[in-house]
Amino acid sequence: MRYSQLLIPTLREDPAEAEVVSHRLMLRAGMIRKLAAGIYATLPLGERVMQKTRRIIQEEMNRAGAQELTLPFVQPAEIWKQSGRWHVYGKELLRFKDRSNREFCLGPTHEEVITDLVKGVVTSYKQLPLILYQIHIKFRDEVRPRFGVMRAREFLMKDAYSFDADEHGAEASYQKMYDAYDRIFSRIGLTFRAVEADTGPIGGSFSHEFMVLAETGEDLIVSCTACGYGANMEKAEIRAPESLASSPAACEPIQRVATPQMRTVEEVTAFLQVPAASLIKTLIFSGPEGPFAALVRGDHEINEVKLRNALGYEGVALADEAVIEEITRAPRGFAGPLGLTIPLIADYGLMGGSNFVAGGNEKDVHLIHVHPGRDFTITRFADIRQAREGDPCPRCAGSLHISRGIEVGHIFKLGTKYSSAMGATYLDQQGKERPLIMGCYGIGVGRTVAAAIEQSHDENGIIFPPAIAPFSVVIVPVNIKDPQQRQIAETMYAALLEHKIDALLDDRDERPGIKFKDTDLIGIPLRITIGARAVTEGNLDIKCRDTGETALVPVAEASARVVNIIKSRTA
Amino acid sequence: MRYSQLLIPTLREDPAEAEVVSHRLMLRAGMIRKLAAGIYATLPLGERVMQKTRRIIQEEMNRAGAQELTLPFVQPAEIWKQSGRWHVYGKELLRFKDRSNREFCLGPTHEEVITDLVKGVVTSYKQLPLILYQIHIKFRDEVRPRFGVMRAREFLMKDAYSFDADEHGAEASYQKMYDAYDRIFSRIGLTFRAVEADTGPIGGSFSHEFMVLAETGEDLIVSCTACGYGANMEKAEIRAPESLASSPAACEPIQRVATPQMRTVEEVTAFLQVPAASLIKTLIFSGPEGPFAALVRGDHEINEVKLRNALGYEGVALADEAVIEEITRAPRGFAGPLGLTIPLIADYGLMGGSNFVAGGNEKDVHLIHVHPGRDFTITRFADIRQAREGDPCPRCAGSLHISRGIEVGHIFKLGTKYSSAMGATYLDQQGKERPLIMGCYGIGVGRTVAAAIEQSHDENGIIFPPAIAPFSVVIVPVNIKDPQQRQIAETMYAALLEHKIDALLDDRDERPGIKFKDTDLIGIPLRITIGARAVTEGNLDIKCRDTGETALVPVAEASARVVNIIKSRTA
Repeated sequence: MRYSQLLIPTLREDPAEAEVVSHRLMLRAGMIRKLAAGIYATLPLGERVMQKTRRIIQEEMNRAGAQELTLPFVQPAEIWKQSGRWHVYGKELLRFKDRSNREFCLGPTHEEVITDLVKGVVTSYKQLPLILYQIHIKFRDEVRPRFGVMRAREFLMKDAYSFDADEHGAEASYQKMYDAYDRIFSRIGLTFRAVEADTGPIGGSFSHEFMVLAETGEDLIVSCTACGYGANMEKAEIRAPESLASSPAACEPIQRVATPQMRTVEEVTAFLQVPAASLIKTLIFSGPEGPFAALVRGDHEINEVKLRNALGYEGVALADEAVIEEITRAPRGFAGPLGLTIPLIADYGLMGGSNFVAGGNEKDVHLIHVHPGRDFTITRFADIRQAREGDPCPRCAGSLHISRGIEVGHIFKLGTKYSSAMGATYLDQQGKERPLIMGCYGIGVGRTVAAAIEQSHDENGIIFPPAIAPFSVVIVPVNIKDPQQRQIAETMYAALLEHKIDALLDDRDERPGIKFKDTDLIGIPLRITIGARAVTEGNLDIKCRDTGETALVPVAEASARVVNIIKSRTA
Repeated sequence: MRYSQLLIPTLREDPAEAEVVSHRLMLRAGMIRKLAAGIYATLPLGERVMQKTRRIIQEEMNRAGAQELTLPFVQPAEIWKQSGRWHVYGKELLRFKDRSNREFCLGPTHEEVITDLVKGVVTSYKQLPLILYQIHIKFRDEVRPRFGVMRAREFLMKDAYSFDADEHGAEASYQKMYDAYDRIFSRIGLTFRAVEADTGPIGGSFSHEFMVLAETGEDLIVSCTACGYGANMEKAEIRAPESLASSPAACEPIQRVATPQMRTVEEVTAFLQVPAASLIKTLIFSGPEGPFAALVRGDHEINEVKLRNALGYEGVALADEAVIEEITRAPRGFAGPLGLTIPLIADYGLMGGSNFVAGGNEKDVHLIHVHPGRDFTITRFADIRQAREGDPCPRCAGSLHISRGIEVGHIFKLGTKYSSAMGATYLDQQGKERPLIMGCYGIGVGRTVAAAIEQSHDENGIIFPPAIAPFSVVIVPVNIKDPQQRQIAETMYAALLEHKIDALLDDRDERPGIKFKDTDLIGIPLRITIGARAVTEGNLDIKCRDTGETALVPVAEASARVVNIIKSRTA
């Protein structure tokens, strides 16, 4: 295409609204514009990148045997009431009434719709397995939309749903999608990692997140430096100590000390001059079976998702001040395990330890020389804390490493959560009615593009992976008014189009500096510069956006060279 | 693809909910399923047809120099308040509040969004002309959604918007889109006609509808049998009589007759034994400058759109009973032009006529021997009635023909309605700020598919035009368990895929009757049947879905023959 005919409203200045690199660069490159909080228009340049990304996703979904369809975006309340999520989904589910006063919502996800649809059209095991997908908008009324398309309210998503007759089939479908995701993110050109994740509000038994590695990522990824283990922070396990019995280390008798106004780990350990690791944090939680205490070492952080999962609860929450005071008979900050009559769930980090500091369950009082087992009885040990750099790997003898990433895909084994609730059954070979076994599989399309930018950019702008670059190559005649330069540029442009190369001809009457700045900013992988030397010496410059390498190439050989470079990079 | 792996839930029976052919056949062919009133899922087979239709639209839009983008579906109230449509758009505009209590709506059309966007990114005449388009969902909260995807609430639309510096440019953009639409509907394989249309609530000065001709169409199309004139019924003009003066035909003096309880044209003319054409219908309207009467012949129908346009009013409405009684001093049904002091707008059909029957402005009284000019004064003659078969063409000496059609596209010259209201301006070559001149251009994608089905089907199901058929050809081995038949079918399938033919292999273990019924129903243009004869004699059947023609072809020549047929039909 010709630059002069394209709407690419680049910005010289960094927009004030943008907090992260991808947001800033997508705005500056004229890829997106904001209409309202978390609601963006995708401009022509962004649209090209999105469509290339979509096409890769589509090709790999189709290759995996998934069938494309389109599901309604506006959804009736009935099906959400059937699944039970109408009342539990938070305000992210935007609810409203139509002109006939019927309740509807904007689809934040489509488990209900697909289950309702499949219920009506799949009746027999002969129709299974089945994987259906769509690439369509979603709306989640985020309380704080931010980071541009990374956490928008309206966004484009690929969502797939699998239906199987048995657990074995469901495993196979899950694996097919896992492999497809692997190919998708590889083809796009991303450095990524699949990690185990919690299933959260979508439900189900098992889940992986696909994380693009980027220092600017919102998410923490925990991975083993020795084996293939990887998980997100919510889910990451830590290897349990060898022995489950507390070792009977020697310990002086317990002693009360005054700790006036000292409530935090930092205050207490500084005052007592002990390391944070020798303190027991006692956190009072409300659970479905009543309050309980979770104990973790002072230098560790509780992980509520792991705590919830360890207890098999649907949800847990820190108790409020009144409950804490009732149970500990002390203000917040002085809770300790001694004398409590509620269950005590202790993290593995406390196992075998002795000589701890703990709250005294009395205002301005802590206890020292606390010895678990001797002074109080732990109901149960469990892995309930956040992983840290160097923690032992749960799968091998290696240790864990923490890195940052951006979640771009998420796959779930749903089991029969939705099919049972909504009555989506099939008849098996024996004619017996059984609920369909489901999986669901999402990719944030805009998020994937943003993650590619977070992972690959420099001070001049975006460095797009060739597979999703808006154009593969830009041809820049230094002076468009020079008829000979223009002639060479036009010939080159025609030759590249002939080879089906997605070329951009920068035919604007602008200074070369402006053209270079713009085409660097929008991240085109290759630039062919046609200047005076092309006319006088018959040579032109080919420059790679990522490495910065340039090569002086005879005009006659240039198009063949460019075709080869592009083919080798997108193979 | 292999039929056994596709979700094509065909129905043997006609679904009760379907009122029109396309709705019935799309449901029966497993293309769509209803989720709620006017809200449909598009299943894999429907998705294939929609995507082929989309691709043709996309290619022609791109060829015309339009640039694709994606605009937000959820839109803030502010921009609708700026354009002035927030309060005038009816309940079709579905309004709601987000979690922060801010007003939003679901986009029924995108003039506001695109104008707001362009306002922020286009500043100079150098960026013009500009045509932007998207293919995305819309939502219109129709009071009575019906006919499946034909009048759905949530539907897929291609909407384009042009921006020009001057009227001349705007004309050129309009013509580009007109030509693109012509190519789109031709390539899809539709019989259609572009007709002049009223601009309605979108506004603007000029408009064409693209109508697919179909006996089952909702819309009436008026076209000249001699020249190229065509318009929809709302807009269709009728040639004015040669002379504007009423001819002084002889007429007896006016006379009162009792017409007890006779209010309708039928009742009065039957009672008086005169033709309907000799009655003057007097209709009292409320207009912005007060009430007025519209007079049309008893055998003609008033056209309120033409009436509104003739008077240059934004809107007119029939007056209510109280106003009619106040003005005519008689109950409804006895209004007549004599003695009224309000303006009298008469249709051309009354011009030169005499000896009419008219209401007496008195209960149960009509007048006969009424002579316009002698007995009352017509304020103004105008073309304000519906066109009928045989009416004189407004452009030539020919006459008008009425046919039925389905509106699939609509193009508008908007002028500066939105750009002026929302401050979307550019700087011209002299540095002067001017409002952008806009046009807008829509195609209902699902509607186009439905119209194709309305236009082309038979008692066995859909007959898809080859360009948008879900598959180009289906290969049906009569007995899939026969290894030789299967072998021939697989070889044929591989050969067609090799030629990039979109082939479907019906590998189901079903009786041939069921396979034929299904593949006829879903409208695949060509069928290759591989039966016992293919094995014993080396011949197979190729059947055309549309003509029903069959040819016996040697197996060895079959794939080449099929490739030729398909290429010749989609060229």
